[in-house]
This record gives sequence, structure tokens and C-alpha cells, in this order.
Amino acid sequence: MDLDVFGSSVGEWLKGDGPESDIVISSRVRLARNLSGHNFLARAQQDELESIEASVGRYLREKDGRFKRLYFRMQELSEMERYILVERHLISREHSRAEPGRAIASTDDERLSVMINEEDHLRVQMLRSGLRLEEAWREADGFDNRLSEHFGYAFSPKYGYLTACPTNVGTGMRVSVMLHLPALVMTREIDKLFRAISKINLAVRGLYGEGTQAYGDLYQISNQASLGKSETRIFENLESVVASVIAYERKARERILSADKIKTHDRLWRAFGMLKTVHLLSSEEMMHLLSAVRLGASTGVLPTVDARTINELFLFTQPAHLQKNTGRSLNTQERDTQRARVIRDRLAAFN
Amino acid sequence: MDLDVFGSSVGEWLKGDGPESDIVISSRVRLARNLSGHNFLARAQQDELESIEASVGRYLREKDGRFKRLYFRMQELSEMERYILVERHLISREHSRAEPGRAIASTDDERLSVMINEEDHLRVQMLRSGLRLEEAWREADGFDNRLSEHFGYAFSPKYGYLTACPTNVGTGMRVSVMLHLPALVMTREIDKLFRAISKINLAVRGLYGEGTQAYGDLYQISNQASLGKSETRIFENLESVVASVIAYERKARERILSADKIKTHDRLWRAFGMLKTVHLLSSEEMMHLLSAVRLGASTGVLPTVDARTINELFLFTQPAHLQKNTGRSLNTQERDTQRARVIRDRLAAFN
Repeated sequence: MDLDVFGSSVGEWLKGDGPESDIVISSRVRLARNLSGHNFLARAQQDELESIEASVGRYLREKDGRFKRLYFRMQELSEMERYILVERHLISREHSRAEPGRAIASTDDERLSVMINEEDHLRVQMLRSGLRLEEAWREADGFDNRLSEHFGYAFSPKYGYLTACPTNVGTGMRVSVMLHLPALVMTREIDKLFRAISKINLAVRGLYGEGTQAYGDLYQISNQASLGKSETRIFENLESVVASVIAYERKARERILSADKIKTHDRLWRAFGMLKTVHLLSSEEMMHLLSAVRLGASTGVLPTVDARTINELFLFTQPAHLQKNTGRSLNTQERDTQRARVIRDRLAAFN
Repeated sequence: MDLDVFGSSVGEWLKGDGPESDIVISSRVRLARNLSGHNFLARAQQDELESIEASVGRYLREKDGRFKRLYFRMQELSEMERYILVERHLISREHSRAEPGRAIASTDDERLSVMINEEDHLRVQMLRSGLRLEEAWREADGFDNRLSEHFGYAFSPKYGYLTACPTNVGTGMRVSVMLHLPALVMTREIDKLFRAISKINLAVRGLYGEGTQAYGDLYQISNQASLGKSETRIFENLESVVASVIAYERKARERILSADKIKTHDRLWRAFGMLKTVHLLSSEEMMHLLSAVRLGASTGVLPTVDARTINELFLFTQPAHLQKNTGRSLNTQERDTQRARVIRDRLAAFN
């Protein structure tokens, strides 16, 4: 098991750089694929799942080579280790069940990863920091083509890629962008904006996908429909919406930093001051305070802090990461104490 | 006018040292005296008041000599300057009216001061840091004897010292102790305690005397009755009550620092973190936060901060001091901004 690396590093997507990275945390392209000549997951027996895992695993680790180090079978991981993968956005919650045949392969920088036997045989994910949808798509597409040549995909000339769930049929693609929108939350414009977005067939979710709340003012916008649209149309649609959300957020930031300058400075600096001194910190309050500090870092109000540090703290303070770094399981108060310590220690260098 | 000195120094009583200074801010002895052969204030004409002021002033500045530098006639001060004297506890609010004959004399360390023509001809005040009632009394008494020899006091063998208000007749003495009781406030024991105290003829007030609220968990306990009791009885009574209040506060501090250790550390450290970073701070919130930081300093939870710094901040952030140090009058938001700046700048040195 080479999960040790996860204790102190973050994936490329949390680096805090890339275009528009003051607002856009990351861009993600996900492809749902199934191998031809194999039963889909709902009908496959255990040995078939295991043989798919074995052959895809062999290809990724040996032929491709970039997945040598980070290749894990769910069954072989502890619960905490599987949660770490969830927190790193490498696997879904569903995939974290320790069932035979389930595996995850990732490049060392966690930019490109493949879930094996999640809902489909393959879920290819490309995750990049900043707003880089097309770049992410080109990279994912190249990799996908090579996989396709090697394995052969279940594909219908009429419908496109065939997938376990009909919502994924067609391109099999889901594209999403993770945005940090604290100013729109402060000015209370966020709900209106998202009502408008959901009318045009895009989905808005919190940090950890469907059904999770948007703690920390982090919102994920993604396409809903996959069928009957070209990849290009999907991109264009998402990109234009994201561009206007970014513009709205920028305007809201300007407004709170001019009209309410002192109040905003007060709020962002206090959040920073508290995070530097907390001894007990719930996950919810932390997300709230980190969001304010990230806004301070992005707007120059907190000149010494950088977005990367804050992005890393979002990750290292998640429960499984906290427990991994403490070396044991923690109850709620212990987690709140440890979370406070991690943040305090990390921010001690900044003034 | 030599009020400039007040911009950067504090009186001896705010030094934060002396016995029990983790809990006792200061001890105060006040004597109400009237000169024989003169009308009391209610009946005195303006020229009589001015002649009293002139002769007492001459004595203090020339004969005694310690009052050369800090001698002010209310009429000659601006409103802001008079408020500064109130904030420094050198004069009462009543005395701050710019009326002829009203004056204040103080030693350079503000330990000993005399209000001339406040409610009585003379109000002698001895103010010391920490719990030093008897020491303060001895000093005040020596000074008072010399004044008495020089001027002659209105005195009745039956009633004692005669004063404008019957509540002061007798010893003419009021003794009070300023206590910082944050732990008793946190554990909600304070009300019960003070109900008990008020039954035994002691008064409990906030930082700025009668009718002011106990912001910052600062409480002043003083004797009520002056008639029919010896000075010694008054001291013994107050001292024994103060001793038990101190013991209760110590126990409460121990309790919140053992049973609720992490919560208490969290609370005190956060208050410190916020004060180091605030940009907008109301007087009320400041008192609340400074109280927590003072508790942290006194109990070793905040090892780098000292009580003196906090005591000084209680003073330098009062409205008139803020305005004096800014050099102009300030509206509420400007005061809140300036107050935040003074505290941030002062605490920047502590980590």
C-alpha cells in the first residue's frame, strides 16, 4: 500500500494555479465507458468483475506505466484508506465499498485517474487546477482513445457510448467546474444565480458531489445531459455559464471591497486571526472561515496567505486525512481539536 | 496644558502589579472633605468657590509640590480633555462640567489626586494597582492630615466629617476595589454572588461607577455606609468580602481550565486572535474580548501577553483617548476603526 504519500501531498488540482484560479478551484472531465464483450455491472458475476479489474489493471500499471504507484483494490484497503481516496476526489462514495473487482488507478499527480467497476467498467477522470476544461478534455480524450483501441468499448452508432445509467449514454461525459463564490454568498445573489443556471440544464452541487451542502462557498457546476449533444456543445454551454458566474463573482468582490471596505477587511482578517488561534474547530465552521481567508488571499486583503495553502487545508482537515495523520481513529471532539491544530500550525508562518 | 502626557502613559493603578493582581485591578480610597469657615457647595457663590480653588491649588502646587504638573481647571479644558480625565478615573462625570472653581490636582503617577469643588470642597483619592487597601489608606490618611492642619475641616465630634451628601457623613470615606471576574461570569455564578454581597451593605458597580454596566467583567465593590463605623471596620468588612470573591473567582478559573480545558483555551486564544486582526471593533465587543485575553494572560493560557498591556488597552481605547491620539473628533465608525487599529498595533508584538 503506498497511501503514505497522501499524508503530505495534494493532487495537482489543488495547487491553486491555472486560469481564473482566484475563483475556479478545478476543472474536471469524466468519461463513463464499458468494455465490449463483457456484461455490464448489474449482470456481471464476481469472477467477470475480477477479470476486468485484472486486465485493466495490468494495462494501466504495465503498458501505460503512469499508474504503477497509485493502484489500489478496494478490498485491500481499510475503511479509513478508502475514505482518504474519497476526500481526494479519486473515488466516489459508492466506489468506496470494499467489494471484489473495485479498484482505482491514478497518476502520481492525481491528475488522471480511472475507477474500475464503479457504476460502469471504467470511469476516466481528468482533474486540473484552474479553468482548463478543454485542456483537460484533450488529455482525457487521448488517453481514452488508447484505452479504446486496446480494449474495445460498448458503443452504438445511434446512441453513442453505452453506459449503466441512461443519463450517461451518448458522450458518456460529465464536465464540471469547482468554483469558490464567497462574495456572491455574502451579497445574497447566489440563489438567484443558481435558479437561473438550473433552468438551462446544468447542475449545481457542493464540494463532495450530489446531495452535499455547499460548505465553504464551494460550488460545482456540471452538465446534466450527455445524450444527443456533442462534446463541443457541452463544453461551450458550460464554459459560457462559468464565464458569467466568474464575472458576477468578480463584480460582487469589487463591490464588497469598495462599498463595504472596512467591514469586509474586518471580516476576512478576523477569520484569519481565528484560524491562527483556534483550539476547537468543527468542520462546518472551518469551511466557513477558510472560505473567508481564501477570499482574502485571492483579493490581496490578506497579502501573506496563498490560495494553495488554503486549498491544502481544505483537504488535510477532512476527517480521514486528519485520522491518517494522527495515526488513529478520532472521536468528534478529538477531530475538532486535531483540525484546529493542523490549521494553527500551518498558518503560524503567515502574519 | 500638560495633558499630552496622557496620550502614551497610564496611571500607576493600571500597571497590573501588586497583590492579587491576576484578579484585582486596583484599590481605591476616597475621602470627602469640606473646609471649615466656608459655605458648602450648594450655598457657595462663584467667588467663594474660586477662592477655595485658588488657595487649595496654591497649597498643592507650591507647598506640597507633587501636583505642579497635573493641575487643571475644568473651565480651561476642552470637552475632550475633560473626558480624558474621566476615563483616567481622575474626575467624576459630574466634575467634568466646565464650571468656575472646579479643578483637579494629581501626582504624576496619578496615584494621589484631589478634586476641588466637586460635590464637596475636596475629594481626595488614592488609587493603587492590585489589592492594597490599607497601604492606600495610610498614604491617603497622611496626606489628609497635612491638608487638615493647613486648612481646617468641617468636623462634628458627634457625626464626624461633615459632607454635602448625608451618605458621606462620618468617615467621609469610600473604599472600593476593582475586580476582574471573567470566570465567575462564564460559570454564571456572578449574579448569585452579588446578590449576597448587596445584602451586607456593599455596592457592586461597573468600570465607570454608578449606573454603568460591568463591561469586560470588571466589577467595583465598595462600602455603602460611611456613618457610625470606624475606618478599620469599613476595611475589614470590604477586605473579607473581597477575599472570598477572589477565592470564588480562582476556583471558577481552575474549574474552566480543567473540566473545560480545550473549550476555554479555544475561547481565550480566539479572542486574542481576533484582537490581533480586527479592523472594526465596538467598545462593547472590545471589552468582552479584552476580558478574555486578560484572563488568558493571568492564567498562563496566553503566555506572551501581560496584564499591563491589556490594562493599558482598556484605557487607550476609550473614546476620548482615541480621539486625543487621533488628533480630532471621530464618529462611531471612525472610533471603531481607530480602536481596532490601536489594539492590532499594540498586540502585533505578541504571538
